[in-house]
Amino acid sequence: MNAGDTGRSGRTGRTDGPGSAGATDPLLAEASAPARIAAPGEGFTEQELALAARNHALPLEALRYDLTPPGLHYVLTHYDIPPADPDPAAWRLTVGGRVRTPLTLDLAALRTLPAVTVRVTLECAGNGRARLEPRPISQPWLTEAVGTADWTGVPLRALLAEADVREDAVEVVFTGADHGVERGVEQDYRRSLPLPVALDALDEERPVLVAYAMNGGPLPPQHGHPLRLVVPGWYGMASVKWLRDIALTDIPFDGFQQAVAYRVRQRPDETGEPVERILPRALVLPPGFPDFMSRTRVVRPGPVPLEGRAWSGCAPVTGVEVSTDGGRSWREAELSAPDGHRWAWRHWRLTWTATPGLHQLTARATDAAGNTQPLDPPWNRGGFANNLVQQVPVVCTAAEHASADPV
Amino acid sequence: MNAGDTGRSGRTGRTDGPGSAGATDPLLAEASAPARIAAPGEGFTEQELALAARNHALPLEALRYDLTPPGLHYVLTHYDIPPADPDPAAWRLTVGGRVRTPLTLDLAALRTLPAVTVRVTLECAGNGRARLEPRPISQPWLTEAVGTADWTGVPLRALLAEADVREDAVEVVFTGADHGVERGVEQDYRRSLPLPVALDALDEERPVLVAYAMNGGPLPPQHGHPLRLVVPGWYGMASVKWLRDIALTDIPFDGFQQAVAYRVRQRPDETGEPVERILPRALVLPPGFPDFMSRTRVVRPGPVPLEGRAWSGCAPVTGVEVSTDGGRSWREAELSAPDGHRWAWRHWRLTWTATPGLHQLTARATDAAGNTQPLDPPWNRGGFANNLVQQVPVVCTAAEHASADPV
Repeated sequence: MNAGDTGRSGRTGRTDGPGSAGATDPLLAEASAPARIAAPGEGFTEQELALAARNHALPLEALRYDLTPPGLHYVLTHYDIPPADPDPAAWRLTVGGRVRTPLTLDLAALRTLPAVTVRVTLECAGNGRARLEPRPISQPWLTEAVGTADWTGVPLRALLAEADVREDAVEVVFTGADHGVERGVEQDYRRSLPLPVALDALDEERPVLVAYAMNGGPLPPQHGHPLRLVVPGWYGMASVKWLRDIALTDIPFDGFQQAVAYRVRQRPDETGEPVERILPRALVLPPGFPDFMSRTRVVRPGPVPLEGRAWSGCAPVTGVEVSTDGGRSWREAELSAPDGHRWAWRHWRLTWTATPGLHQLTARATDAAGNTQPLDPPWNRGGFANNLVQQVPVVCTAAEHASADPV
Repeated sequence: MNAGDTGRSGRTGRTDGPGSAGATDPLLAEASAPARIAAPGEGFTEQELALAARNHALPLEALRYDLTPPGLHYVLTHYDIPPADPDPAAWRLTVGGRVRTPLTLDLAALRTLPAVTVRVTLECAGNGRARLEPRPISQPWLTEAVGTADWTGVPLRALLAEADVREDAVEVVFTGADHGVERGVEQDYRRSLPLPVALDALDEERPVLVAYAMNGGPLPPQHGHPLRLVVPGWYGMASVKWLRDIALTDIPFDGFQQAVAYRVRQRPDETGEPVERILPRALVLPPGFPDFMSRTRVVRPGPVPLEGRAWSGCAPVTGVEVSTDGGRSWREAELSAPDGHRWAWRHWRLTWTATPGLHQLTARATDAAGNTQPLDPPWNRGGFANNLVQQVPVVCTAAEHASADPV
């Protein structure tokens, strides 16, 4: 197992940051799976399968919805979905640390503040991990860890203004209610943002939200009920669910999810780069109909409308190219007109004339900053930000109907 | 691949029932994965993983809800979730075949008929498949393909009475709108019920429903919007989603999902027994908190409240036993009082005094018909109805906190 260890925190039961309790309980270490990389040719493990079952992907046909219905939006829960308090009015959000006016807010108080609604495409930083070789063992996403919703809540900067942030604050640390252990470190899920990002000072059009509604209704349990952070343009790990505390700090936060997990590393002993902005990706809404087991698509000869979505957290999407021959040739798709939803995916379409045989469909998004999708997967030890192009195998039949069930 | 073929329909592109089109398109056969059994030691395949990602399991902590929130209820979609009609008023349900008064109903017409609401626990017939050895290759459920909802709709027997069923009718065939190919057979998803079951003549307290609401709201897309069948006590394959046609027949239906799939077989060449009623199962709401990757649970020494759910489609649950030593000794749990919801799971609880070390929790349900759960998995080629007892590994720590993330 040690061969695949990512290093900074292994099976030792210790944390690597200041304030670490540092004690080692061998029983806790026993419970906690180490980081590792799959052996060559190793099939998916039962632990990976158990994560794939409980963390829900977007079924690809749900790319047809502008707004993903909540039960089809991707879900990644590090530990457990926390129990709802029997009295929802008992939930409190605290804002403290390097502020002059610490706040304690209940949901009613939050709802009296001016609210905004932002349409945001969220994607898990581990999307694409299962297609890496060798494969980092973790939540094994293929390409479907994505979804788009209208999030309603209070801009974080309004709360920070009310708390009166001190001049020495440099970061904002967000703590959720889900509790667990990961590589020996017991923790509440916790992540930080640099203060300028939290204040939207770097990008006036990207309000970071403390959200209490999704698509106009209360947050479902798995999406952070009753409160969550939403950071447009960043991979999902930044959008802390079940939010209960916001703390301003005068040193950079180095907790597990910031300094150990969610770093792009080639070697286990390097600090690595933090995972932040969503890289561009296009997905194809699979055409025709599927085979149950292989998910290979079946279409008839003739014109086949192709469509899908494309997004980037780095800059607006400027183009989508589509290939129907596995990447040998590409055609430019028609992008939907900008609709003011900068942080949501855009729709694209193209008509393809199918001929009998097996075809490989793929699509590639490019953004205004010049980022595009690679044709070879960008490997790193954690399996983050793999925006390799998707491959959609499609069989075009010769006949109108090959066989049919009795009616 | 042929070694694992379940036989009656393989890669031939043919159906096995009367009315089969029978034509073979080698391209369609190319698209369609054959039935097979995993080789000894073969890890989960990418095709199994893709199914596990798109078909959602109940995260086990959601056992805490009497009624499963729709986004946490298990979902199994054979083909695609069909597109919603741009005009919901355009949906039609037809009732025909061996009837004197064929019906065509829209949603408004259905809503004028007397409605009932029934609380039902649905479970996939393939639940537990991934724990079989050797493993049938299909949707790889572990133990979490379950959920409970309040379904509201029109009793099927009321529609059949209105259609005036002819005396020679023996079965009722239900057709959904999802379309795909499976082992070479192109089909709309289609299943039948014997007429006495459809009429509830065998069990007056089990109304088979044509349902248009789930937990008081419209059906979500993945649960059959706008209409579905709900057959209390039967595995989920009977509860046809996206229901658009009901046909009375004078011969038993032998379509793919009835005669090829969903049969309990030991050999590929036998007819096998049909999969029907849900066998008893108890699940433990995992105590304490989890490790991210292994999902091993962590608890502190001392009293630990254990709880969970138990259900059976065969007869009311009469008892749940719990073992905290991997099945060597058992204690009787306290079952919740009957609450009139015969077709829904029941809550159970028990207090366990945890001591430092590794423990294996397991629970076993028994019903009034004397059915209980096996300690060894009941193997069959399709991987159906494996109600093997669940195993929940739990580590009880020695210390109050072993390590912690910096705050």
